[in-house]
Amino acid sequence: MISSLLTDLYQLTMAYGYWKLNMHNQEAVFQLIFRRNPFRGNYSIACGLGTAIKMLEEWCFTDDDISYLNTLMSSNGKPLFSAEFLKYLRELRLSCDIDAIPEGTIVFPNEPLIRVRGPLLQAQLLESILLNIINFQTLIATKSSRICQAAQGADVFEFGMRRAQGPDGALSATRAAYIGGCVATSNVLAGKLYDIPVRGTHAHSWVTAFSDELSAFSAYAEVMPNNCVLLVDTFDTLAGVANAIEVGKKLRNQGAELAGIRLDSGDLGPLSVKARAMLNQAGFSKTKIIASNSLDEHSIKQLCDQGAKIDIWGVGTHLVTAHDEPALEGVYKLSALRDADQQWSYKVKLSEQVFKISTPGIYQVRRFFQDEQQVMDILYDIELGIPETPTAQSFEESHVDMKVMDFDACVDLLVPVFEKGKLVYLDESIHKIRERAIAQATQFLKSYPKEAYMVGLETRLSDLKQKLIKELS
Amino acid sequence: MISSLLTDLYQLTMAYGYWKLNMHNQEAVFQLIFRRNPFRGNYSIACGLGTAIKMLEEWCFTDDDISYLNTLMSSNGKPLFSAEFLKYLRELRLSCDIDAIPEGTIVFPNEPLIRVRGPLLQAQLLESILLNIINFQTLIATKSSRICQAAQGADVFEFGMRRAQGPDGALSATRAAYIGGCVATSNVLAGKLYDIPVRGTHAHSWVTAFSDELSAFSAYAEVMPNNCVLLVDTFDTLAGVANAIEVGKKLRNQGAELAGIRLDSGDLGPLSVKARAMLNQAGFSKTKIIASNSLDEHSIKQLCDQGAKIDIWGVGTHLVTAHDEPALEGVYKLSALRDADQQWSYKVKLSEQVFKISTPGIYQVRRFFQDEQQVMDILYDIELGIPETPTAQSFEESHVDMKVMDFDACVDLLVPVFEKGKLVYLDESIHKIRERAIAQATQFLKSYPKEAYMVGLETRLSDLKQKLIKELS
Repeated sequence: MISSLLTDLYQLTMAYGYWKLNMHNQEAVFQLIFRRNPFRGNYSIACGLGTAIKMLEEWCFTDDDISYLNTLMSSNGKPLFSAEFLKYLRELRLSCDIDAIPEGTIVFPNEPLIRVRGPLLQAQLLESILLNIINFQTLIATKSSRICQAAQGADVFEFGMRRAQGPDGALSATRAAYIGGCVATSNVLAGKLYDIPVRGTHAHSWVTAFSDELSAFSAYAEVMPNNCVLLVDTFDTLAGVANAIEVGKKLRNQGAELAGIRLDSGDLGPLSVKARAMLNQAGFSKTKIIASNSLDEHSIKQLCDQGAKIDIWGVGTHLVTAHDEPALEGVYKLSALRDADQQWSYKVKLSEQVFKISTPGIYQVRRFFQDEQQVMDILYDIELGIPETPTAQSFEESHVDMKVMDFDACVDLLVPVFEKGKLVYLDESIHKIRERAIAQATQFLKSYPKEAYMVGLETRLSDLKQKLIKELS
Repeated sequence: MISSLLTDLYQLTMAYGYWKLNMHNQEAVFQLIFRRNPFRGNYSIACGLGTAIKMLEEWCFTDDDISYLNTLMSSNGKPLFSAEFLKYLRELRLSCDIDAIPEGTIVFPNEPLIRVRGPLLQAQLLESILLNIINFQTLIATKSSRICQAAQGADVFEFGMRRAQGPDGALSATRAAYIGGCVATSNVLAGKLYDIPVRGTHAHSWVTAFSDELSAFSAYAEVMPNNCVLLVDTFDTLAGVANAIEVGKKLRNQGAELAGIRLDSGDLGPLSVKARAMLNQAGFSKTKIIASNSLDEHSIKQLCDQGAKIDIWGVGTHLVTAHDEPALEGVYKLSALRDADQQWSYKVKLSEQVFKISTPGIYQVRRFFQDEQQVMDILYDIELGIPETPTAQSFEESHVDMKVMDFDACVDLLVPVFEKGKLVYLDESIHKIRERAIAQATQFLKSYPKEAYMVGLETRLSDLKQKLIKELS
């Protein structure tokens, strides 16, 4: 369970302010977007909604939370929050409408992954935790998708727990890595909690616990004849392969097969080629070669290009920490607020950097398809609507005009998840989410191996945004 | 509570192997070390022991864990673990001796942050979770220390929750960031759980929720007169400063003071200088300027060098994810194992990369001081001992001879934490740990602003290591 106190203090001070000013029930709309694809890539994979739903279902402030908040003091030594406000918080229950793009969907900058509509105070309070969950899992699902695509269909195992950012850094990362395309994890608790296949064999310490490598391998084969993957690099990799083959022969005499060997250091390309030749020559052509050691999508691609003979990739640190870009810069911006007279007032936050100017409105994303291939996404305001064949402008300063040339289908990506605080979204299995992520990324990369994908702002919404910017500047 | 299933599967398959071979109670020693200081720095701050102690106190496999493990199958479709082994696991309780370097201590590559001595099976099972906890918190405490040192005594607030790696990524990071030197956090749950001061005011959404910035600031001052820090960059930073001053004057008429303004975008150096001048001229010389926006130790140093007028630094993403190096590559290596005849057998793991060759033995770190300044650390084996004025060799391939020239004090860094599975370590307050970290980093950087610090391997241990390497090569 994620505590509702897992938030930034300013969410609570703002909530207190809205409450004091009697603005707390004004209907507000916030949208959670990210501004750039991570890893210099051209797509991202939405992830984290399942975790967010669990958090939202249990969202409330307990007696214990309230007692803690009651200890916080203002600079004048008086309580930061009034007793009356804390009583209000204690009784508060979620009553927002929350729409989201299903996990495993391919998504792009400026698209709302989540839209929260409801009382200003509640919608504000959800900011930090939604960002925390969605930013990280979307980042890792995207990294995983890139790594699995680089592996060209070979299995990728996620092995990152020991270098992950804390216990939950490991759990969240494993969940997202599986959704992005990994086939299994070493993380046993994640296996239990999320129904993800778990894999693992032995470490260097198994080998060093015996007097020599051959004894260690023989002992492992004896105790794990049906799950025998031998780590061959404790002392010298190719000598290790020879020892593994010797043990493989013994295993075969007993009616079992050497499942695999694992290379964990050195120059994996040439080593895998030599190991493969040694295995094949000894009659172990079905024994798999697993490789690990600081791998990511770039090193995997390079090894594939070099002709490395690797059947399974074990990926750890670089996947679970998204090592080359360890944070997705998602933001959660107020985009509309009903005035006292019930009129919607649309909101933008300005910035000198055009890509940081937020989009006003209550917006949805429509994706257009031609021959089952996605061709363009358009953000539109649900009050202003969208024509059947819409025009749009790009998000850049140049506001390039865009138009869907041909399409034979379209779909709105945001779907209802909570209605007035009640969960209406059907639970999806993690396996189904993963299949969606793999299918969409594979299909997308066929048409857009490197090209930027077109995402536009529907013309009426774009005009409205420009008008608001002018008024504020 | 951290589940004992939060481990890599291979720890359990190895444990099963040791148990089947009746090796599970052989006395083993594992040492947890890291191989390089992160961030191209010359020191690290040990962190995470408090969290590890909590985990270790509760370490056991529950009925629920055992039921899950019982569902895991081998490739031949039979259970991966026998019922008898699972019964053994269910009844297993910690009985190891665990020694550690106290949190907040300045540490260096090759030094054991934790030493686990006890039954091989148990010591092996603890690997993944100890690495997970210690790697991440040591990384973040080190990053925090570097950032706080760059701030030259100015307060640093940690604001990173929304971009942290998952819910616990945020909590663990906040704990470590405070230990490293931050004075406060925005993370309310971390405040509650770890007794860390919490801080926060308002976001851009507060400003956009009103018809204009001045109304928003006035409203905030009305509801939070004693905690009034105004975020001035929603539309235009310097116009925002002018609005903040106007509200500050009203506040003063009511007997309160404008506590601060926050700059969150743009060129923080010149903006802070202009804002400071505007505030001073209007009589608000005590109003603090807080700056945030993707800051780290490098940008803070640059801004200080430029003469930026910033009183408080708000640091988020770059701190809590350790953005430029998001993983500490700590390892946990078997270094000694008692044979069946009760003799210690010392262990090394070889590597083509010399810095990756592990150190054998049951080792301790002795730190030598001269005039209260640390001058050298020496790792020694507790069975081989250490002379009063020891000699040592460096860890590099060159094995440079080292000697402590003069010292007037020395201390052994590893202290007992668990004895035969029983906690013997006195709980320290997080504030005391933080004071140690700040004092040691400050003192260290006076003598070693950039220089590498000398850490050697006591000559007898060094000779033994070389002998073992030769035997294995």
